[in-house]
Amino acid sequence: MNPSDPLLEAVRRGDARALARAITRIENREAESEELLRALFPDSGRATLLGLTGAPGAGKSTLADAIASLLRQRQKSVGIIAVDPTSPFSGGAILGDRIRMTRHHADDGVFIRSMATRGALGGLAAAAADVALLLDAAGKDTVLIETVGVGQDEIDVVRLADVTVVILVPGMGDDVQTIKAGIMEIADVFCINKADRPGADRVENELRAMLSIGHRDDGWNTPIVKTVAPDGTGVPELLDAAESYIAFLRDRGLLANKKAHNWRQRLLDLLRERLLEHALAVSGEERLSQLAERVARRELDPYSAVDSLMQRTV
Amino acid sequence: MNPSDPLLEAVRRGDARALARAITRIENREAESEELLRALFPDSGRATLLGLTGAPGAGKSTLADAIASLLRQRQKSVGIIAVDPTSPFSGGAILGDRIRMTRHHADDGVFIRSMATRGALGGLAAAAADVALLLDAAGKDTVLIETVGVGQDEIDVVRLADVTVVILVPGMGDDVQTIKAGIMEIADVFCINKADRPGADRVENELRAMLSIGHRDDGWNTPIVKTVAPDGTGVPELLDAAESYIAFLRDRGLLANKKAHNWRQRLLDLLRERLLEHALAVSGEERLSQLAERVARRELDPYSAVDSLMQRTV
Repeated sequence: MNPSDPLLEAVRRGDARALARAITRIENREAESEELLRALFPDSGRATLLGLTGAPGAGKSTLADAIASLLRQRQKSVGIIAVDPTSPFSGGAILGDRIRMTRHHADDGVFIRSMATRGALGGLAAAAADVALLLDAAGKDTVLIETVGVGQDEIDVVRLADVTVVILVPGMGDDVQTIKAGIMEIADVFCINKADRPGADRVENELRAMLSIGHRDDGWNTPIVKTVAPDGTGVPELLDAAESYIAFLRDRGLLANKKAHNWRQRLLDLLRERLLEHALAVSGEERLSQLAERVARRELDPYSAVDSLMQRTV
Repeated sequence: MNPSDPLLEAVRRGDARALARAITRIENREAESEELLRALFPDSGRATLLGLTGAPGAGKSTLADAIASLLRQRQKSVGIIAVDPTSPFSGGAILGDRIRMTRHHADDGVFIRSMATRGALGGLAAAAADVALLLDAAGKDTVLIETVGVGQDEIDVVRLADVTVVILVPGMGDDVQTIKAGIMEIADVFCINKADRPGADRVENELRAMLSIGHRDDGWNTPIVKTVAPDGTGVPELLDAAESYIAFLRDRGLLANKKAHNWRQRLLDLLRERLLEHALAVSGEERLSQLAERVARRELDPYSAVDSLMQRTV
C-alpha cells in the first residue's frame, strides 16, 4: 500500500468516514486490510485501551457513553468498539451506533463502532483487536472496548485492553458466587452499576469478601466503584480507578510487560490462523472433507487423519 | 498402547472408575490420552450425542437428569457431560457430580462428569469432544452434553452433537429477540423449561413467529416442547422430539453428512492446535516472547512477526 494512500492519510487524521470504510474492510477480511494495518501499525501504541465487560443488561453502553463524555470534557478523543456476539441482527448494531452517535452530537472526537458478526477465520476477537489498532493509529487517546460477557470470545476481547473493568448489577442474578472464574481473573476494576438499586451494598460486600481471599500476582488491590451511569454518578471515580491501575503498572515498569504479554497472545492467534490457512491451501479443502467422511465411517481415526494433513504441511 | 491394556478393557466395559481416570488423563492432556483415544476410536460411533444448551438458571442439569432417568426406564445407558466454563471452582464441579450421582442411586447405567477447566491448548470444546468419544466407546447408548450458553465455546461444544436442544425459560430476560443468532441456528429442538411459570405461552408465540420467518436448509421444522423438569412433565415429548430429528436425518440419508460435517470441524480444530504446537516447538516459546516484546515496542509489526514464525515452520 502506498504510504501516501488517501485512505491511510484520512485514517491517520481520524476522519470518521475513512475509519468506517477501513473497519468494513477489516470485518470482511478484504485483501488490503492487512496491508492497511501494517502501514498504520507504526502510528499506533499511544492510546489507552480500556475494556468494559458485563452481562447483557449491565448497562455497558450507557456507561461507555458516560465515560466518553467525561473524557471529552477533559479534551481527550475517544473511540468505542462495542462487541456483541449475542446481537442477532447486524443491522441493529448499525442502527444502535447511529443512536449513540447522536448522543455525542456528531462530536468528531468520539467514534463508535459495533461489531457483531463472527468472522469465519480468526473471529470476533481478532477483528476487534485490528479495529482497536486502527483507532489507536487514528489518534484516539482512549479506546473503549465493550463486550457482552460470558465465554471465551469475550475474554479474548478484553485481553487486548490495558485495563479491564468488570461491571456487575445488583439483583440481576449475577451473584458474585456465580460469576465465572475467568472474568474474576481479568477484572482490574469492579464497577457496580445501577448502584441506586437495592442490593448494591450486598454485591459490594460479597466482592470484598471474595477479593480478600486471593491476591493478584502484580500486587494490585482491585478497587470497587459504584456508578449510576445515566446521571454520571461515580463515573469520574471509575475512570480515576482505571487510570490509577495504568499508573500503577507504569510506575512499577509492568505496563510494557503487560503489553508484550497481550501481543504474545495476539501473535499466537494470528499464527494459528495463518498456519491453518496454509495447511488448507496445501492439502485442499476437498481432502479435509474426504478424511472427515472416512473418520465418520470409522475407517480412520481422527488423530491419524490429522497426522496425514500435518505431513503434507510441515 | 497395548490393545489388552487393563484401562482400555475397563473403559470398554463402562467401568465408572476407569472412565473417571481416563477423563482425568484427557483433561490434563497426559501423553497417553491420545493413544487411549486412538485405541478406543473403533469402539465408538454407536451412541446418540444429544446437546442441551441454555443460559445459567435454565435448568439444564435437572432436565438432563430427567432425560437420563427416562432413558434408564427404557433400558438405555447414559453418559452426561456437563460443560460449564462459568463455574468458578473446579472443586464445585466434582461436588456437584457426586450430588447428581446420588440422584441416580449409584446406577451403573448413568455416568456423570462435569468439565469446567479450560485447557491451555484446544480448550474445553476439544476436551468435551474427547470425553464424548470415550463414553461412546464405553457403550453408553446416549451421551448428553449440557453446556451453559453464551459464546463460541458453547457453540463449539454442541456442534459435536447429533441433535441439539436449546432451552429457554419464561421471564428470565432471555426474550426471543435477545437470543443470539448463533444459538438460534444450532437449535434442532426448542425446550421451554419451567413452563409452569407465567410467560411460557408468550415465549412459545415469539419462538413460533421467529421460526415462521426462516427455513432450515435441511427442511426440518424445529419443534417446541414445554417441560417442567423436576416432575418430568414434557420430558418424554422432549426426548421424542430429539429422536424424531435423528430419525428425520437418517431417513433422508443426512445423518452421515451431519456426522462428517461435525468431524470436519473437529479435524480442523485438531489440526489448528497441532500446527501451533509444531510451530512453537520449531521456533521456541522464547522467540515468540522476543517478537512480542519487539511488537509492543513498535520495532516490528505483528504481521511481519508472524511471517517470520511461519517461515521457520512450513
